[in-house]
Amino acid sequence: MISIARSASAKHPARPGLLGLLALLLTWLLALPAAAEDGYDLWLRYRPLPAPVLKQYRDQGTQLVAPADTATQRAARDELVRGLSGLLGRAPALAAQARRDGAIVVGTPASLPQLAALQGELEGLGEEGYLIRSTRIDGRAATVVAANTDMGALYGSFHLLRLVQTGQPLAGLDLREAPKVKVRVLNHWDNLDRYVERGYAGESIWDWHKLPDWLDPRYTDYARANASVGINGTVLNNVNTSALALTPMYLEKAAALASVFRPYGIKVYLSARFSAPIEIGGLATADPLDPAVRQWWKDKADEIYRTIPDFGGFLVKANSEGQPGPQDYGRSHADGANMLAEALAPHGGIVMWRAFVYSHEEPDDRHKQAYNEFVPHDGRFADNVLVQVKNGAIDFQPREPFHPLFGAMPRTPLMMEFQITKEYLGFATHLVYLGPLYEEALRADTHARGPGSTVAKIVDGSLEGHALTGMAGVANIGVDRNWSGSHFDQANWYVFGRMAWDPHAGAEDIARDWARMTFSTDPAVVEPVVSMMMGSHQAVVDYMTPLGLHHLMGRGHHYGPGPWVEGGPRADWTSVYYHRADARGIGFDRTASGSNAVGQYAPPVAAQFGNLDTVPEEFLLWFHHVPWDHRMASGRSLWDELVLRYDRGVDYVRGMRRTWAALEGKVDTERHHQVAVFLGIQEKEAKWWRDASIAYFQTFSQRPLPEGAAPPPHGLEYYKSLQFPYAPGDGK
Amino acid sequence: MISIARSASAKHPARPGLLGLLALLLTWLLALPAAAEDGYDLWLRYRPLPAPVLKQYRDQGTQLVAPADTATQRAARDELVRGLSGLLGRAPALAAQARRDGAIVVGTPASLPQLAALQGELEGLGEEGYLIRSTRIDGRAATVVAANTDMGALYGSFHLLRLVQTGQPLAGLDLREAPKVKVRVLNHWDNLDRYVERGYAGESIWDWHKLPDWLDPRYTDYARANASVGINGTVLNNVNTSALALTPMYLEKAAALASVFRPYGIKVYLSARFSAPIEIGGLATADPLDPAVRQWWKDKADEIYRTIPDFGGFLVKANSEGQPGPQDYGRSHADGANMLAEALAPHGGIVMWRAFVYSHEEPDDRHKQAYNEFVPHDGRFADNVLVQVKNGAIDFQPREPFHPLFGAMPRTPLMMEFQITKEYLGFATHLVYLGPLYEEALRADTHARGPGSTVAKIVDGSLEGHALTGMAGVANIGVDRNWSGSHFDQANWYVFGRMAWDPHAGAEDIARDWARMTFSTDPAVVEPVVSMMMGSHQAVVDYMTPLGLHHLMGRGHHYGPGPWVEGGPRADWTSVYYHRADARGIGFDRTASGSNAVGQYAPPVAAQFGNLDTVPEEFLLWFHHVPWDHRMASGRSLWDELVLRYDRGVDYVRGMRRTWAALEGKVDTERHHQVAVFLGIQEKEAKWWRDASIAYFQTFSQRPLPEGAAPPPHGLEYYKSLQFPYAPGDGK
Repeated sequence: MISIARSASAKHPARPGLLGLLALLLTWLLALPAAAEDGYDLWLRYRPLPAPVLKQYRDQGTQLVAPADTATQRAARDELVRGLSGLLGRAPALAAQARRDGAIVVGTPASLPQLAALQGELEGLGEEGYLIRSTRIDGRAATVVAANTDMGALYGSFHLLRLVQTGQPLAGLDLREAPKVKVRVLNHWDNLDRYVERGYAGESIWDWHKLPDWLDPRYTDYARANASVGINGTVLNNVNTSALALTPMYLEKAAALASVFRPYGIKVYLSARFSAPIEIGGLATADPLDPAVRQWWKDKADEIYRTIPDFGGFLVKANSEGQPGPQDYGRSHADGANMLAEALAPHGGIVMWRAFVYSHEEPDDRHKQAYNEFVPHDGRFADNVLVQVKNGAIDFQPREPFHPLFGAMPRTPLMMEFQITKEYLGFATHLVYLGPLYEEALRADTHARGPGSTVAKIVDGSLEGHALTGMAGVANIGVDRNWSGSHFDQANWYVFGRMAWDPHAGAEDIARDWARMTFSTDPAVVEPVVSMMMGSHQAVVDYMTPLGLHHLMGRGHHYGPGPWVEGGPRADWTSVYYHRADARGIGFDRTASGSNAVGQYAPPVAAQFGNLDTVPEEFLLWFHHVPWDHRMASGRSLWDELVLRYDRGVDYVRGMRRTWAALEGKVDTERHHQVAVFLGIQEKEAKWWRDASIAYFQTFSQRPLPEGAAPPPHGLEYYKSLQFPYAPGDGK
Repeated sequence: MISIARSASAKHPARPGLLGLLALLLTWLLALPAAAEDGYDLWLRYRPLPAPVLKQYRDQGTQLVAPADTATQRAARDELVRGLSGLLGRAPALAAQARRDGAIVVGTPASLPQLAALQGELEGLGEEGYLIRSTRIDGRAATVVAANTDMGALYGSFHLLRLVQTGQPLAGLDLREAPKVKVRVLNHWDNLDRYVERGYAGESIWDWHKLPDWLDPRYTDYARANASVGINGTVLNNVNTSALALTPMYLEKAAALASVFRPYGIKVYLSARFSAPIEIGGLATADPLDPAVRQWWKDKADEIYRTIPDFGGFLVKANSEGQPGPQDYGRSHADGANMLAEALAPHGGIVMWRAFVYSHEEPDDRHKQAYNEFVPHDGRFADNVLVQVKNGAIDFQPREPFHPLFGAMPRTPLMMEFQITKEYLGFATHLVYLGPLYEEALRADTHARGPGSTVAKIVDGSLEGHALTGMAGVANIGVDRNWSGSHFDQANWYVFGRMAWDPHAGAEDIARDWARMTFSTDPAVVEPVVSMMMGSHQAVVDYMTPLGLHHLMGRGHHYGPGPWVEGGPRADWTSVYYHRADARGIGFDRTASGSNAVGQYAPPVAAQFGNLDTVPEEFLLWFHHVPWDHRMASGRSLWDELVLRYDRGVDYVRGMRRTWAALEGKVDTERHHQVAVFLGIQEKEAKWWRDASIAYFQTFSQRPLPEGAAPPPHGLEYYKSLQFPYAPGDGK
């Protein structure tokens, strides 16, 4: 069609026949299948900008000066061409130097001599930072993206595109950005058979069987999406892993993925099974102090780095939930981690050693066990070990107080582990934006070195002066066309990346960026969407586990309400262990009169949480067993407040449905429809949570429902009878 | 953009500004993400026709007269609008009657009074047939699609679109079509956890967890694709099924799918677990002669039909490979099938009872067991029972002689079961067109009623006068974007549907239609593609299991060569059981001197297969144990011929790579690249098959390779050492 148009316009300028051509073009255009709005593009959705702002950006994107001599440079230039072509409706003219005002100039002092003058300004931006500045280059007004490295320039290119996508002016720019955290990784809980533990977006995107030969184009789009938010590493396999992931066949496959990710600055990591020396090495032991075992890991590391020269390192789940580990041999977590660290150190690799451990013997409140096991080893971990700590002490509940390990291991770099996939949060169909959860955890004050000792400062290393820092997110990615199982779950991948880059960033600002990039820059869309998102976390807390309740989900799969779950292999896998409801009241006494988990926090925090008068109401039943008639801040009794919180959660979802319904016509039909249906499921399930929970807890409280609260439509036995043997993601 | 263009052309006809507008349109058009050629569209790929033929079709598609008062009528009209808009570059004008020459008129005498005159012509077309005729309607030249039912008209609409897609002239049409087989069903071996047994295209497209609320638009596209080739039923769940598929929760989900499929004439069927009365009914037995069991199934059938009024019926795998069945209670397959048939009969449902059974005690050559178990019950099955028989007696091998049951049960309607998914055929990456395999099986002459008693005539009921007839295909469908795991595997879904509609159709004609619809109408593409496809089946036979060898694949997963497989729970799950290679020769003696499986065929067939001089070479080692030095038709020894057949298979794949490479630029980049990479994998694996097989069999033959044959690059131990614990589809 281009050639037709060109020849027509060259030979027959502006004559009536052109109208016919135009009409033909239009009809063909309409006949072509429209690019489906199926969510595959994620936030890298480069649709044409609205006409009113188009000219402004075109004047500032007349040319693109961006070298393409390395793979990362090509990635940056390709992304800018793709993005600007889509957003501005025409491809930018590529040029070796700026010849007109309005050029976009991207590079490093090494790749573009024009940028040599900026050398001094780049100090302090490190290997991943960049600056974006409105300045003059080659005597022309230009927008410059400059960095010390190609990767910095790629990150800056994505930032520049984000500015255009979100409608920010490009005039007078003077931005400096560098990540505050060094290791920003996704943890894929993906098995080698493509099953994803706690995955609600379909099976694993890693098509192991066809690797290394077939490199699905999706792998490149995965890398683009991650680089666009600053994620620089990915652990390919589940923490509950087979040792086979470390065999040559799988290393070759991992190397193929690494080759796709490398230009985007993404390192490949692998989960390592601690007993691999036995299972694939033929040794009789995996004792970390055994010389043969140590040598086996050194040889394995050498082999891995021959295959993947920039391999990132190992993630390890040891002595937890049945996984093997150093304690099997009477050794400590530090012994285990340091053995692997020793093998990786010559190659620059790191160990991410998970602190999510709890004893098989249940000697104590599970809340306390990670602290008990790790604090004694503070200072004993090798320099290239990060201890990876979940945000809370139980397990990715809708709301948890911050993990007491934060602030308790000053001599050890602690890495944050957030869950992006919504294991305990209703799976893919519930709209829950996790930005507020992450923000709450990161802004929590540990008081470890006095007021202001936030979790964010521990994670970014600034509180204790650690250089090795990290944040991990358990991925919510699968083969579903929209990657994350729902359109709104894409925002959780996005906000994880942005907060890993800057743990002090604000959840609402990020939500606004995401909504603009993903749906529309129209404020009539953006503001309602951001508003829905920002309240959605509190809503799920309300309709599932209000006032500090936790771990009340169905057994195993964690789908739907199961506050009645009891029995089975261990008490701390039941609901009754956590809510402890009885005729007197409800809640887990973790004060000095109970398990004294509060004692693991710094004294000011312990004092606050341990006192019924000062504990925040959102953690009330987390730390205290409270009588049903306890007077709440609202003046209501605990029982009445509990019921009203459940109702409030349901009401919020109902409100989201109304808000979303009003956006019909402002959001494309395809995505609008799916979100609308999912919100319908969420309302149905929020009611189910409320009704089942109230039906159950009322058997203890023996109190009437407060005025205005509707009784559950079914008896308790109905709710208890519901079974979901094939709920997704439960590990089978 | 439409409104811009309209106002511009109205106010400023044909002036220079229009050029700019045209340029703007073009750049925007180019900036829009092009509809990716990712294969999602299957053969319903309605891309604009090349300009030279466009006018002809436009003149014959000036208007569309097609009522849309029922869901099926709307499906037909929507498909015609979608198809013609895409193919002709503009939407057809909808009209209540033909007002211009060149109308397309679609309907039934009931839906369109204009078609009443055709009433007589529709006799004999039944409930699914149609005619397409160039005639005059409302006094205008028109192309008419007429049928007795809305479904017939929908089938005819797809046929008309196929004519346009494949570039057939629409002048002088006079086609009459009706299916020759009544029940044309896909068998999904999909588990309720979305795992697909023998699935190589990703997990199940049925998202059970989100059903019944979320109806993925893919379900509609699945129905369109099936209806376009005449498939009128789908068994949603695996034959190895959980009884839970029959519980209310899953029936509600199945009903939601049925509601999507209904307008497309596709009935939902379920696999029924024979022991369901125990597992979900609370009974102590599943004995088919027990009155309580019979009542349970009647009640269950009543319940199902209340939920799904047009439910198709049950598919049952009983007393086979560990599945429960009537023999557990000393009853026969007929007893079991008739009990279910009795429950379904009042509602018009049918039972498809699989003949793929073999004893746990291995009393005899597995080849003979289905015959031994079923033939004695011929005439004892209820009227609404079909016995579903695989094309061969072993299990979907690359090539098998026809199943001896065909022709041996004249009083029972036998349904064909083909495998579409490539369990024993290299999985998704091997290009193997199954049309020739299906054709070979259907055209095989059973001699049951003398010469010409083909399997096709048994399947279509004409040989014995059965009205209930059927063909089943084990689906190759999963969530992969291209549905089938590879672009060429779509052709196997397509050819299955076409041959289920007409078991006498030709594989090459169907391949040509498919290639035109899927890739291009350019003969420079179509003919090489069809040529690749038509030889691909013989090629895979050659490089995997030449000359009648069979069942030599890796244990369990059936991936790659495993001729050395021996031991394990039962002999007939090993390779050595089937090839019986020894120092003297190779092959399974199934003549009277051996297992005498040939005795199950009609005498002329038994005589042919049982005689070393007359057995077709492609079945030589299937029926005979043959000395290594046996002189073949080529004049070569068996050993030399065997080696050369392996080489021939590899050479064919190499040739397909060359052919495909030459099509670069003639096929879109995205699909061309994937096919090219897959052909590379196929060549690598074809060599692996050849080399491993030769290395193994040479240990018996002790003969040198014939001149020109390259020795295997590795020793036998290398090939035996390869392990694939996570190969897809092996049922875990």
